[in-house]
Amino acid sequence: MSVRRVAPAVVLVNPQLGENIGFAARALANFGLSGLRLVEPRDGWPNDRAHAAAAGAAFVVETATVYPSVEAAIEDLNFVLATTARPREMVKPVLSPESAARALVAVALRGERSGILFGPERSGLDNDAIALADAIVIAPVSQDFASLSLPQAVLILAYEWLKAQGASPALGRVTKFDGPAAEGLELAGTRKATRAELLGLFAHLEEELDRAGFLRPPEKRASMVRSIRNMFHRMAATEQDVQTWRGIVASLAAARKGTRT
Amino acid sequence: MSVRRVAPAVVLVNPQLGENIGFAARALANFGLSGLRLVEPRDGWPNDRAHAAAAGAAFVVETATVYPSVEAAIEDLNFVLATTARPREMVKPVLSPESAARALVAVALRGERSGILFGPERSGLDNDAIALADAIVIAPVSQDFASLSLPQAVLILAYEWLKAQGASPALGRVTKFDGPAAEGLELAGTRKATRAELLGLFAHLEEELDRAGFLRPPEKRASMVRSIRNMFHRMAATEQDVQTWRGIVASLAAARKGTRT
Repeated sequence: MSVRRVAPAVVLVNPQLGENIGFAARALANFGLSGLRLVEPRDGWPNDRAHAAAAGAAFVVETATVYPSVEAAIEDLNFVLATTARPREMVKPVLSPESAARALVAVALRGERSGILFGPERSGLDNDAIALADAIVIAPVSQDFASLSLPQAVLILAYEWLKAQGASPALGRVTKFDGPAAEGLELAGTRKATRAELLGLFAHLEEELDRAGFLRPPEKRASMVRSIRNMFHRMAATEQDVQTWRGIVASLAAARKGTRT
Repeated sequence: MSVRRVAPAVVLVNPQLGENIGFAARALANFGLSGLRLVEPRDGWPNDRAHAAAAGAAFVVETATVYPSVEAAIEDLNFVLATTARPREMVKPVLSPESAARALVAVALRGERSGILFGPERSGLDNDAIALADAIVIAPVSQDFASLSLPQAVLILAYEWLKAQGASPALGRVTKFDGPAAEGLELAGTRKATRAELLGLFAHLEEELDRAGFLRPPEKRASMVRSIRNMFHRMAATEQDVQTWRGIVASLAAARKGTRT
């Protein structure tokens, strides 16, 4: 069974604002989650504001399921996490979102079902709901201001869920023209310059700089040349960059010669 | 100079909705950032909707500074990142939010100033703004739905910034009664049981189970006992848990004896 098929259910317990349900849905969709469960949303269901706030992720709102109690919402699950802002005087394991995501992936790889409980905006989960969970998840936050909104908390868990599925997840949006991006230098269809191309540029530039009298005094020349060469290497120049610089050098040199004639 | 003093500036370029500026401010405050810069916000500045959406983080909105251009907003910075959804056909390093945060911490530790550019909601950063940056940051997202909102993108970068500052950041909210939480078993003021307390419980329970005829047949007794003991160890029982279980055992045993008399 793939990790995907048994992705965690996200259970919003007594959410107050439809808008926050929609923002949460958009957060889930961005990170490959869609199993939204609602326990008695305050303003009833369906909710127009939830649809509007979800933007393109309205499908997550439309497929959300509603339950009369936390127990009913989690009865098919094998592993349940409760998100809170503090440990709440319960003897229970505490996980960071990152560790929680790793635990959720491990559960999914066993083919078991998991869920994450989020409490209402004003008060968070009550202690009876937390007592139904295997572990508590608490996000790292500033000690000066710690007030994650419901959709912010959902986003962090969803983001860590996607990250936990691979060491190097694909980055960004896939379009008709682009696949996903990866870390490293984006080359936009070109390639890194060869050393022959760079050495040709160095010879051209240094010849013109000698001619212009820039590489002086002679005892400083070697270190000046090294500095300039290092700049080009740090720039990780492409084939096209080398062409551009040869044009720049030729054009500036010609202009200088022009001003002297 | 502390990492804190040179935390990255967050530059929203032509943000459209005041509400999103407020949500972004709340995201920043939650993760210890406050240097919000705005380049020509569409609806002018100050903006009531931004204040309302920031909730308790209104101080971030109130201290935001407004600039007439991206260049003006970043001129004091040494290192600038541009957030995009795709690499945009530019030869530029691509970083994940996690790697970007590590780079921002490294810059801060050198005492240099950094900033992160975020584009307007509809279109993202334009190519001229991206060309002013040292590197591009792209978040990992679902390949089926990739549509991070502006405040969602800000939240992810701010969250990774806080995480990048230490291997085990403090979790959750500090109150008058609680310090920050840490990963692991929260003990809520009690302590793990000693082995003597557990062995006392095992002896009590097993004696009552023998008396009740539960640990049968004799050839299964040893493995049944091991299973029960392992359950108590997995539960990581506290001193209080052991007291509770001794009470449960005594009470059930007394009830059983009661029904027989």
